[in-house]
Amino acid sequence: MCEGQKPLKVAVLGCGSVGSQVVRLLTEQAGDLAARVGTRVELAGVAVRRIDAPREVDVPEGLLTTDAAGLVSRDDVDLVIEVIGGIEPARSLILSALEHGASVVTANKALLAEDGPTLFEAAEKAGRDLYYEAAVAGAIPILRPLRESLAGDKVTRVLGIVNGTTNFILDKMDSSGAGFAEALEEAQELGYAEADPTADVEGFDAAAKAAILASLAFHSRVTAADVHREGISEVTAADVQSAREMNSVVKLLAIAELRPGPDGDAVSVRVHPAMIPRSHPLASVREAYNAVFVESEAAGQLMFYGPGAGGAPTASAVLGDLVTVARNHLAGTRGPGESAYADRAVLPMGETRTRYHVAIDVDDRAGVLASVAQAFAEHDVSIQTVRQEGRGDDAQLVVVSHEATDAQLSATVEHLRGMDIVREVTSVMRVEGDTE
Amino acid sequence: MCEGQKPLKVAVLGCGSVGSQVVRLLTEQAGDLAARVGTRVELAGVAVRRIDAPREVDVPEGLLTTDAAGLVSRDDVDLVIEVIGGIEPARSLILSALEHGASVVTANKALLAEDGPTLFEAAEKAGRDLYYEAAVAGAIPILRPLRESLAGDKVTRVLGIVNGTTNFILDKMDSSGAGFAEALEEAQELGYAEADPTADVEGFDAAAKAAILASLAFHSRVTAADVHREGISEVTAADVQSAREMNSVVKLLAIAELRPGPDGDAVSVRVHPAMIPRSHPLASVREAYNAVFVESEAAGQLMFYGPGAGGAPTASAVLGDLVTVARNHLAGTRGPGESAYADRAVLPMGETRTRYHVAIDVDDRAGVLASVAQAFAEHDVSIQTVRQEGRGDDAQLVVVSHEATDAQLSATVEHLRGMDIVREVTSVMRVEGDTE
Ligand SMILES: NC(=O)c1ccc[n+]([C@@H]2O[C@H](COP(=O)([O-])OP(=O)(O)OC[C@H]3O[C@@H](n4cnc5c(N)ncnc54)[C@H](OP(=O)(O)O)[C@@H]3O)[C@@H](O)[C@H]2O)c1
Ligand SMILES: NC(=O)c1ccc[n+]([C@@H]2O[C@H](COP(=O)([O-])OP(=O)(O)OC[C@H]3O[C@@H](n4cnc5c(N)ncnc54)[C@H](OP(=O)(O)O)[C@@H]3O)[C@@H](O)[C@H]2O)c1
Repeated sequence: MCEGQKPLKVAVLGCGSVGSQVVRLLTEQAGDLAARVGTRVELAGVAVRRIDAPREVDVPEGLLTTDAAGLVSRDDVDLVIEVIGGIEPARSLILSALEHGASVVTANKALLAEDGPTLFEAAEKAGRDLYYEAAVAGAIPILRPLRESLAGDKVTRVLGIVNGTTNFILDKMDSSGAGFAEALEEAQELGYAEADPTADVEGFDAAAKAAILASLAFHSRVTAADVHREGISEVTAADVQSAREMNSVVKLLAIAELRPGPDGDAVSVRVHPAMIPRSHPLASVREAYNAVFVESEAAGQLMFYGPGAGGAPTASAVLGDLVTVARNHLAGTRGPGESAYADRAVLPMGETRTRYHVAIDVDDRAGVLASVAQAFAEHDVSIQTVRQEGRGDDAQLVVVSHEATDAQLSATVEHLRGMDIVREVTSVMRVEGDTE
Repeated sequence: MCEGQKPLKVAVLGCGSVGSQVVRLLTEQAGDLAARVGTRVELAGVAVRRIDAPREVDVPEGLLTTDAAGLVSRDDVDLVIEVIGGIEPARSLILSALEHGASVVTANKALLAEDGPTLFEAAEKAGRDLYYEAAVAGAIPILRPLRESLAGDKVTRVLGIVNGTTNFILDKMDSSGAGFAEALEEAQELGYAEADPTADVEGFDAAAKAAILASLAFHSRVTAADVHREGISEVTAADVQSAREMNSVVKLLAIAELRPGPDGDAVSVRVHPAMIPRSHPLASVREAYNAVFVESEAAGQLMFYGPGAGGAPTASAVLGDLVTVARNHLAGTRGPGESAYADRAVLPMGETRTRYHVAIDVDDRAGVLASVAQAFAEHDVSIQTVRQEGRGDDAQLVVVSHEATDAQLSATVEHLRGMDIVREVTSVMRVEGDTE
């Protein structure tokens, strides 16, 4: 099969958690890769910051270099895999690779979410591929199904658990009753959370992935700046307990959905903790696993589940892309590429319709329920269920609203906070994942 | 974007459950399809058996024809969608379409599992695509991920719930305690099972899908005839109850896995009911939903979940393929196609290593456990757990074995059946889905 075909040369930028596994698989799977691509794929070089750092993989003699810019502009490099991360020098290196005629695979969600359109245009102009399956939900094939398998359908909603660290923490809080700080500490001890957990815990990582998912699902340009973002550091053991009582569980969701806007359907895109019913397929995603739930008009409800991170799983996704990109490179074609033809507006969070779960410590006297209901009514928010619990100092109301705009709902909560009979609003959380 | 490009002409063969939804989506999504393909996709004709039969969709005037053979050989037809089903005339029509230069999309698992290689060779020879995502697990994108997303990885195992009818029946038996006959009747009333349920209930449909999955996962030729097949008609309420007691659930699984064979790794491919632990992701697949669980060396464990049948979901998968095939057709290229380069042998069922759950009614006297254990030992089958239950006439032993060959295990069961102290072997079932 490979007789006579010139081998393809691949440059790998970065040799850390992901890069070292990419290099390992390129070597170990060389035979299978050759059969699947149609010719051998040879390592041209591996760019790193420190030549002498210890590596998880033996890079063949002479291939390590600190001159990434020189590597991507070499004439004999056909394919470039970028697994350095961050904005620069990753962006300049990808742009240079494309200009020099290479096709590119990257796992860099931060860069794609910040400046994807610049990269997509450069790829289009160069007539080369830029693939990035590994950037969202690690090993789980989700971008290719969204872009290709569902190309004949209309996607209406994507709900994803796309950050393993936060899922691990919330799962611990749910299973052990621990508070946020305690669960975070355990995640750090087990290597599921970094020493500085901000990017994960405050939802920045999930927001980058939400932007990428929304762009692909709705054929529109959505960047990280468009994503309303709330993390999980304010989620309390009481919130998680409240969820349990509703037979629900708290998850950090990346949500992208089509919603009626002033000029046709608009995109609502956001990351926040939410309660979802335990019967929802996403509720059973435990520990650091990821899953993406997709709703479309014809296919209905689909879910994609698997490991969302880790060197080897992420490298699997990178190499899956590499095979496609290499085949296209040989054939002189490109894959479907990005399209923003639908050009949908992004709905401000205030106009997004959601549901709220609100737990309120109240004075134990007659008429409290009526007053609280009146507060919701004043903001045009209708109530789905209300539960009275406890007596005396423990008196509590738990209200779940019907859908209303986020602005109406947050105004309602402000209103409640100012009421005499309300001692404290103890838990406010959005509710997702069931059909009204 | 579409200026100047000639539209592509598509012929649809069959206008039943799936075909009518394909025709509907082709019309309703015409704008999006044009943007995604790069040119308009126009309906050239719709072949049916009966022109005047009532249809779920309005086929544009003059496009219905009973001359399928004439339609696929028309010069102006670029793409053919085959949703008639069965072996003939579907096979001849697909071959003729390819010979006439059309690219083909089909949902026909029976044909692919019986005679896939003939079709794949014809497509290769014609330089055209033959895509069939809809043939396995309906709307769930599983073939494209296996073929493309995991192309840089080594798949070691695929476990699928790929038949909605049998999953519905087993789920009912689990949730209500009903027997097989009663659950089947309910499935028939609700339209989940056909009047003649043989193809579903006896595992023929799942076996066709298992063959397709095994071929793709292991880059080898596997046909329906290679698949060891057992249906669910012998599954009793007692089996399901036994599973419950082990915190497990009975599912009809399509299994394709790599196992050490005499000359390197061989393929074990089979369809049979099995007990899986409730903690396994496949255990929570309810009602008529499908899911496919994939294990690979680098990516680890992935699961794909969604509706496995139905006109609209299946049409979504067909149209996803259509967009890719149409883009390739325009560009004059083909997708990855089938490959059988690994050319692995298929392991006979007797040599396949599995685990058994065996429930035995025994005489209530001393030494029974020792004698039963001895029977297992004589066939070199080691026991993982044994539980004694009841007393007197109700005395029962429940044994779960470690892995052994299927031949050893069935010989053990035969042996038990011949023993004096054994009143009856009440339940024999394979155990899957956890790591020993
Ligand atoms: N880790 C995961 O589980 C995961 C999952 C999905 C996506 N990703 C994405 O994959 C990418 C890589 O992540 P990672 O975890 O592998 O990161 P990492 O372990 O920190 O590795 C980064 C690598 O890039 C090299 N590098 C840094 N700056 C460089 C420069 N200026 N020039 C050349 N090389 C440079 C480093 O070299 P030295 O080794 O010499 O320091 C190191 O080998 C990121 O975009 C990340 O978001 C990671
Ligand atoms: N239904 C599902 O949920 C599903 C899911 C996955 C895959 N599939 C596959 O999709 C395919 C179609 O299934 P279906 O459920 O749509 O079948 P169906 O409802 O029975 O429809 C079959 C269609 O083919 C037409 N037809 C039959 N013989 C023909 C002939 N000789 N020439 C021209 N047209 C002929 C019929 O015409 P008339 O209408 O005139 O009788 C009918 O329109 C099968 O391969 C099936 O395995 C179906």
